[in-house]
Amino acid sequence: MSCSALPVAYRAVPEQATQRVGFGSCSRTHGTYHSWGRSIEGLTFQVDVTARKITSISDTETVPVPTSEQDYEEIPERPRPNATPISTFQPLGQGFRIERGDISWQNWRFRMRIDPRVGVVLNLVQIVDEGRARSVLYEASVSELFVPYMDPGNGWNNRAFIDAGEFFAGVGFLKPLKPGLDCPAGAAWFDGHTVTEDGAPRLTSRLACLFERATENPAWRHLQGSEVFGRPGRELVLRAAATIGNYDYLLDWRFEPDGTIKVAVGATGVIETKSTTLVAAHDDHSGPETGQLVAERVFGVNHDHYFSYRLDFDVDGAANSFMLNRMVPQRVDNDPMRKSIWVNQPFVAAREKDAILDIRLDQPSMWMFMNPSVKGPLNYPVAYELMPGATAKSILSADDPVQRIGAFSEHQFWVTPYNEAERYAAGTYPTGSDANDGLAVWTKANRAIANTDIVGWYTLGFHHITRAEDWPVMPTMWHEFAIRPFHFFKKNPVLDLPKSLVGQ
Amino acid sequence: MSCSALPVAYRAVPEQATQRVGFGSCSRTHGTYHSWGRSIEGLTFQVDVTARKITSISDTETVPVPTSEQDYEEIPERPRPNATPISTFQPLGQGFRIERGDISWQNWRFRMRIDPRVGVVLNLVQIVDEGRARSVLYEASVSELFVPYMDPGNGWNNRAFIDAGEFFAGVGFLKPLKPGLDCPAGAAWFDGHTVTEDGAPRLTSRLACLFERATENPAWRHLQGSEVFGRPGRELVLRAAATIGNYDYLLDWRFEPDGTIKVAVGATGVIETKSTTLVAAHDDHSGPETGQLVAERVFGVNHDHYFSYRLDFDVDGAANSFMLNRMVPQRVDNDPMRKSIWVNQPFVAAREKDAILDIRLDQPSMWMFMNPSVKGPLNYPVAYELMPGATAKSILSADDPVQRIGAFSEHQFWVTPYNEAERYAAGTYPTGSDANDGLAVWTKANRAIANTDIVGWYTLGFHHITRAEDWPVMPTMWHEFAIRPFHFFKKNPVLDLPKSLVGQ
Repeated sequence: MSCSALPVAYRAVPEQATQRVGFGSCSRTHGTYHSWGRSIEGLTFQVDVTARKITSISDTETVPVPTSEQDYEEIPERPRPNATPISTFQPLGQGFRIERGDISWQNWRFRMRIDPRVGVVLNLVQIVDEGRARSVLYEASVSELFVPYMDPGNGWNNRAFIDAGEFFAGVGFLKPLKPGLDCPAGAAWFDGHTVTEDGAPRLTSRLACLFERATENPAWRHLQGSEVFGRPGRELVLRAAATIGNYDYLLDWRFEPDGTIKVAVGATGVIETKSTTLVAAHDDHSGPETGQLVAERVFGVNHDHYFSYRLDFDVDGAANSFMLNRMVPQRVDNDPMRKSIWVNQPFVAAREKDAILDIRLDQPSMWMFMNPSVKGPLNYPVAYELMPGATAKSILSADDPVQRIGAFSEHQFWVTPYNEAERYAAGTYPTGSDANDGLAVWTKANRAIANTDIVGWYTLGFHHITRAEDWPVMPTMWHEFAIRPFHFFKKNPVLDLPKSLVGQ
Repeated sequence: MSCSALPVAYRAVPEQATQRVGFGSCSRTHGTYHSWGRSIEGLTFQVDVTARKITSISDTETVPVPTSEQDYEEIPERPRPNATPISTFQPLGQGFRIERGDISWQNWRFRMRIDPRVGVVLNLVQIVDEGRARSVLYEASVSELFVPYMDPGNGWNNRAFIDAGEFFAGVGFLKPLKPGLDCPAGAAWFDGHTVTEDGAPRLTSRLACLFERATENPAWRHLQGSEVFGRPGRELVLRAAATIGNYDYLLDWRFEPDGTIKVAVGATGVIETKSTTLVAAHDDHSGPETGQLVAERVFGVNHDHYFSYRLDFDVDGAANSFMLNRMVPQRVDNDPMRKSIWVNQPFVAAREKDAILDIRLDQPSMWMFMNPSVKGPLNYPVAYELMPGATAKSILSADDPVQRIGAFSEHQFWVTPYNEAERYAAGTYPTGSDANDGLAVWTKANRAIANTDIVGWYTLGFHHITRAEDWPVMPTMWHEFAIRPFHFFKKNPVLDLPKSLVGQ
């Protein structure tokens, strides 16, 4: 048996005001590679972690520990029918350069560093346009994670993780990548430093990788008459992986030749499960509403995943504005053929509360970071659009102590004025905190955000009802969003890409 | 100068009740490769296409024809700094088989055909599970497109295209793909037949292609202790391209080893533009609300793109039900640590109106096709989930004659009982029609859909406000949705994939 205690991000019990409290639970480890899927339910304890003393024990139920298959490590390979080797081939080497920390690929220029708390941080992201390096982002990274579970039982009511802010100490947010699995063999690799529990620096290899990918998609194409014109695309992937206990997150920044950056999160690893006496679902779909069985006696508890991305745009300079381009239905009168259209109505957000946003299909709008002082050749302000992806926002009560800490998940998008103290969406010191810091607190001031240095905060989220296919390890599921130039270039910037070497 | 007349999908003028009416406009073609961006505004005409007679001419304004750059064909290649060749390499050949029309790849089995009207049609899509071929889809394809423009002026008020149903005759919906650009050189290619205007069959080469893609992403992975376990992923792409005049759409079915199918649309080609006297946007963001300048005197008109996908699920048999698994907030009382959770509440749709759906962040739910008679090992009904992507729905008035024809775009998802006459979301004969056929009409009957052969209709859509970067040809923009197994397999079906050949 193995027991461990974790802090929680929020003020869950009054003792936290004066004590460093750990919340403990146990699992059976005997005879298994690892303890996922072997929880001992109902048995919990609290620890004063400074005094190293157990202060209370609670034993509320007796549930046999499951014995279901949990192995994913040495599963024999079963070759798929007709499967043949496939690999990406770059006979002249990689198409990017890394010189003194400057990364260049196609027209992109950027720097990156590995931060112990939030992982890969991009800096000074620029794109060369007619010989001139133009600024897009000053800085961009993950800012925080929030993973609340949806079970109020003993041992589960405290499971709501602020994964970056709570768990980086001692081990770092990122964990090593594996060549040939996480990144192709020819990738460039980046080491990084973390701080160990006793304060010493530790160098860890392969915390990020950089590689080109043949997308096999055209960057653009058009059939005119009987001839197809176009140029093939490719992309540059900067990847890292965070493993926080059971879950693994692949964290990608994907640079496209046309000025788009796709930001993607791949969730894999082991889901968090609860031992149960249930061996099969009820016939009538009734039964526990807090999750799904994923194996006999192994219950996958409902939960959410939220990632806050901090995007410090500097579109052609630091002073930017956030603009909504709203699509507004309009009635058409006296037209024999049409009764309605929609029109685009730009709206520049003056203050923070103007820019707290969620996608709504019935009220569409485009979200843009623009520079009011720099006009493109057609006199539109140069801009970068933030293109939301499929996502989720939290539906917990705003007064739930868990939700108060993870309050950035209440909305999909926020904008703040730049403030060097505001780097972490759930606050700088979330552990055991009283939710007096973070995005939802800062924006209450409703500060001015027009024509100044501003920061966008995008929440990428998904609700997770588990399934048998997620056990004993979960197939990678990707979610993404993107940013792309909008009246930033004077025309399609990939018109002049090299042609394909075949088929010409 | 070149003039041409097109029918319109809807009943725009009374003459259509008795005449075959074409709506005509003109563009300057002298000295250009093609006429996109050279429209002669204000000059329109109607034609009785049976009598071959112009019945009316309207000339409402005089706008100089733009002379802006419109060339994308012979743009010189400008090599990107450090760019090196990149290609996918399969020394032992492709990892799929095509035998007598049966396509097999990994555990997938399916058939496909090329239909003149809707392009690639998948049939009998099955996945092999422990030696047994299990049904997922009976049939799946695009069903219809709807592309309404948002300008009520003369020559634009009739632009609302039902691209599949109106424009396949004579040329077919799909157009040839180009090796090395649209698909890698080693792809398998499929020819297809269309019917020419005089009724003869015509064989066209390369209307679809099939290829494997090295995703460079792990199918799953987990770091346990200091070791990373996992298996690399790859995918099979079945691709076609529809060019309907100016726009090109890449249409992908992407098969994943884990039972997921991703459905993706890449929009590229030339945007439809209007000539204008405007050479620059107004300083104060005011100005035409119906679009954006994309070059001097070239105005990109606001529009929408909607694709209706017809998905005839047969999950382990024909009799399926559509189930929502709703995530419902619940208050938690008397818990010191939590005040709220959400629970999952399954709801089986009894009738069509129960299954007309749009994503809402504040009312999340999972959308599933399940077989109530076939239980998985944990006694859940076997199911496939439909996972929506970022999308749009129409915000035009329901009574707009254009919207009445494209009414499938009012919602993101619909479910109908199988009916062999119901194949096209805007009706079988949309041209000049009075909107008395199609998804919105059929579902008014509110037929029973539980435990019977049912069909799902997914609307993939996006609003399009154009930008300078979309001219003279638009960088490819992708949108997608996916289907994936849910309690269909008894565990993660890709645990036993082959390992990487490197890094072990």
